[in-house]
Amino acid sequence: MRLRKRSWVKEELMGSLNYFIESPEEHKGNWGKVFNNLNPIHAELGTGRGNFITTYASDYPTINFIAIEKRQEVLVQALRKAKLLGLTNIRFVLGDVNDALNFFAENEIACIYLNFVDPWPKTRHAKRRLTHNRFLTMYRHILNNIGEIHLKTDNEQLFEFSLNELSKNDFKLNDISLNLYRNQENFNNHIQTEYEKKFIKLGKPIYRLEATSKNKESI
Amino acid sequence: MRLRKRSWVKEELMGSLNYFIESPEEHKGNWGKVFNNLNPIHAELGTGRGNFITTYASDYPTINFIAIEKRQEVLVQALRKAKLLGLTNIRFVLGDVNDALNFFAENEIACIYLNFVDPWPKTRHAKRRLTHNRFLTMYRHILNNIGEIHLKTDNEQLFEFSLNELSKNDFKLNDISLNLYRNQENFNNHIQTEYEKKFIKLGKPIYRLEATSKNKESI
Repeated sequence: MRLRKRSWVKEELMGSLNYFIESPEEHKGNWGKVFNNLNPIHAELGTGRGNFITTYASDYPTINFIAIEKRQEVLVQALRKAKLLGLTNIRFVLGDVNDALNFFAENEIACIYLNFVDPWPKTRHAKRRLTHNRFLTMYRHILNNIGEIHLKTDNEQLFEFSLNELSKNDFKLNDISLNLYRNQENFNNHIQTEYEKKFIKLGKPIYRLEATSKNKESI
Repeated sequence: MRLRKRSWVKEELMGSLNYFIESPEEHKGNWGKVFNNLNPIHAELGTGRGNFITTYASDYPTINFIAIEKRQEVLVQALRKAKLLGLTNIRFVLGDVNDALNFFAENEIACIYLNFVDPWPKTRHAKRRLTHNRFLTMYRHILNNIGEIHLKTDNEQLFEFSLNELSKNDFKLNDISLNLYRNQENFNNHIQTEYEKKFIKLGKPIYRLEATSKNKESI
């Protein structure tokens, strides 16, 4: 059953090649051609069902968005949202963040979104957290000179880990929030993911930060 | 009554001139002479009843400690603790953090402790928070090239403000903790202030960070 479902999903993805990018590595360094313009490119790593990035793409037509998600049955749901909205500034990649260096050239990305990524709570799994040093090195490479990382999570320990890891790696932190919706205005200023809406209903605080790669700033 | 109590307190301070420094500005740039050695100098701003700094001074005899507190009836309680312990590496200053530049020369301090300082929760009072930009500029001046700020608070919003303000001012953040005693080992690794013990009993999380002044590091 599972296999059949997956193959059906694959078919839907392959039937949406104006949105689904089958071989992202072929566009490394040339994503502008995919979008047919030179607008800045923002990438969401672990897009999930895509509420965040499709809303963002709809609000900011002069930014190009690339949504990366490794579970195809989830990616397809995000893709459908983009179709429904008739977006032209978003593409979908079925892939793993570990392969980001194969997808993007140096300085190609203006912003990376990490929304409610897996916290990998066990210490022995720390290397899998998407704000681990080994990923930050990768992000610094693909981010341009004023490139930013925007992180949101409900997980206190992942947030704490991320603060330390980013700081250790000389990222400059901005707009750190330990309870994003303490300020009611932020409901209007920030787009919520599916997970996020659920956590807000449960009364859990949402943590958020922005980070810029200072080493590049000083070049 | 209040006046009489205060004058009695003043008398006690003046009777303890081996601990109490009446004119701290006279020692600016020469605190080594006060301690009769060249050990590094750590200053606690807003010492309160002094449990933290007297315990620290007792544990680290090769560091000199200066405890600054603006309420004399509180300072005297901290001073008594030092007396009881027979400490020789600690001095007490009755003063305001606003005057720190009059007390210390450039590069004279190795570490500044800010423990449970007033959060000044109203936005219009932000300038009074001891991690406001105007204080950070002061700390950077008096801290030496490897100087550190150690901050602890139970106040989420003060901690959030401090993270942002330190980062904005190019301090490098280390050992950020959003719940210091989540890790039970920290009960042994960290000295608790009077306030802190109370907050821990109430089950409130304690926030902590260390910060170094990177601008100086790169000189």
